[in-house]
Amino acid sequence: MPFRSIGRGTLLAPASLAMLGCAQEAGAPNIITVAWLGTVNSEPPMLSVSIRPGRFSYGIIDRTGEFTVNLVSRELLKAADFCGVRSGRDVDKFASCGLHALPAEGLTLAPCIQESPLYLSCLVRSKLELGSHHMFLAEIVAVGAQERLLDERGRLDLSRAGLMAYSHGEYVPVGGPEGFFGYSVARDEVLQRRMPGIR
Amino acid sequence: MPFRSIGRGTLLAPASLAMLGCAQEAGAPNIITVAWLGTVNSEPPMLSVSIRPGRFSYGIIDRTGEFTVNLVSRELLKAADFCGVRSGRDVDKFASCGLHALPAEGLTLAPCIQESPLYLSCLVRSKLELGSHHMFLAEIVAVGAQERLLDERGRLDLSRAGLMAYSHGEYVPVGGPEGFFGYSVARDEVLQRRMPGIR
Repeated sequence: MPFRSIGRGTLLAPASLAMLGCAQEAGAPNIITVAWLGTVNSEPPMLSVSIRPGRFSYGIIDRTGEFTVNLVSRELLKAADFCGVRSGRDVDKFASCGLHALPAEGLTLAPCIQESPLYLSCLVRSKLELGSHHMFLAEIVAVGAQERLLDERGRLDLSRAGLMAYSHGEYVPVGGPEGFFGYSVARDEVLQRRMPGIR
Repeated sequence: MPFRSIGRGTLLAPASLAMLGCAQEAGAPNIITVAWLGTVNSEPPMLSVSIRPGRFSYGIIDRTGEFTVNLVSRELLKAADFCGVRSGRDVDKFASCGLHALPAEGLTLAPCIQESPLYLSCLVRSKLELGSHHMFLAEIVAVGAQERLLDERGRLDLSRAGLMAYSHGEYVPVGGPEGFFGYSVARDEVLQRRMPGIR
């Protein structure tokens, strides 16, 4: 057997990494960094986010039913880590990290983070209490991208974002594309157009 | 406003990428590649996987209640793409891709993929019908890692796996760690030990 058993654990990797923006009517907006999230549906677009119920942001999201998902660039990494280990009960994370809250399209309270390359506006549709974490199922109602991520034809080019992921306790960068969905069965002319120089 | 609105969509990136192994009592085992998955709970360890109900593997997993999550290395990328665009109704994916099915710890039917760097054995606990996709919530009951991923002290070193992620229709590699959970508030001696040469 080539595999060694290493017990049971949350070893799915790499995982998405995101800073969630949230806010109540009164009080400063807050940020919590999470990796236990993922896309769960295409139509309508939905994602899940799991948060420990003791976290400060959990209560805010649970009460307001909205949050933003802000992707993490290399420049944001240290702030992202900080917003994952500190609590909004103790510090104003926007101020501490030099970040700026902006209104998020489609939401009433939760702000997006101006310094993030791309954000998704999310409305909570349901919640499941799974154990250590409670999972919010949310619909993605809007997406905003920095102008610099759009190419000359207005198409989103995420390779310009310098995105980071989470892998077994560490933060890792993602590199440029090495294939596209369907490339293994694509015709030569498509390969030449989309991946010139690669067979 | 620095953000341009680009509509609503499944723009969480990078996303995890995995090849699911599944099998019924009769018939060849099958593989489906997915990116709509994520960790959803730490204790007990759980993940979610969303699959369109028309997919061949959906029925197998729905009936048997088990599957494996096999992480995707660069070497496996072309096979992973193939297993995402072709159907097990038409082709034997293990044979077509030169992959080998092995028994997975803790499961009865679903095999793991011998060529994958790491796999997670998963038992379905519940299912939610969300729209285009149905989401399986599953408990991770065992994890197997290739011996080559374990360092001299037996600790898992995922940077040896050459893992791939999925980002907005493209496959991207992940690089070496640029930080660890808590590094933004770690003491200097911890930083020096875990990230020598980095402040």
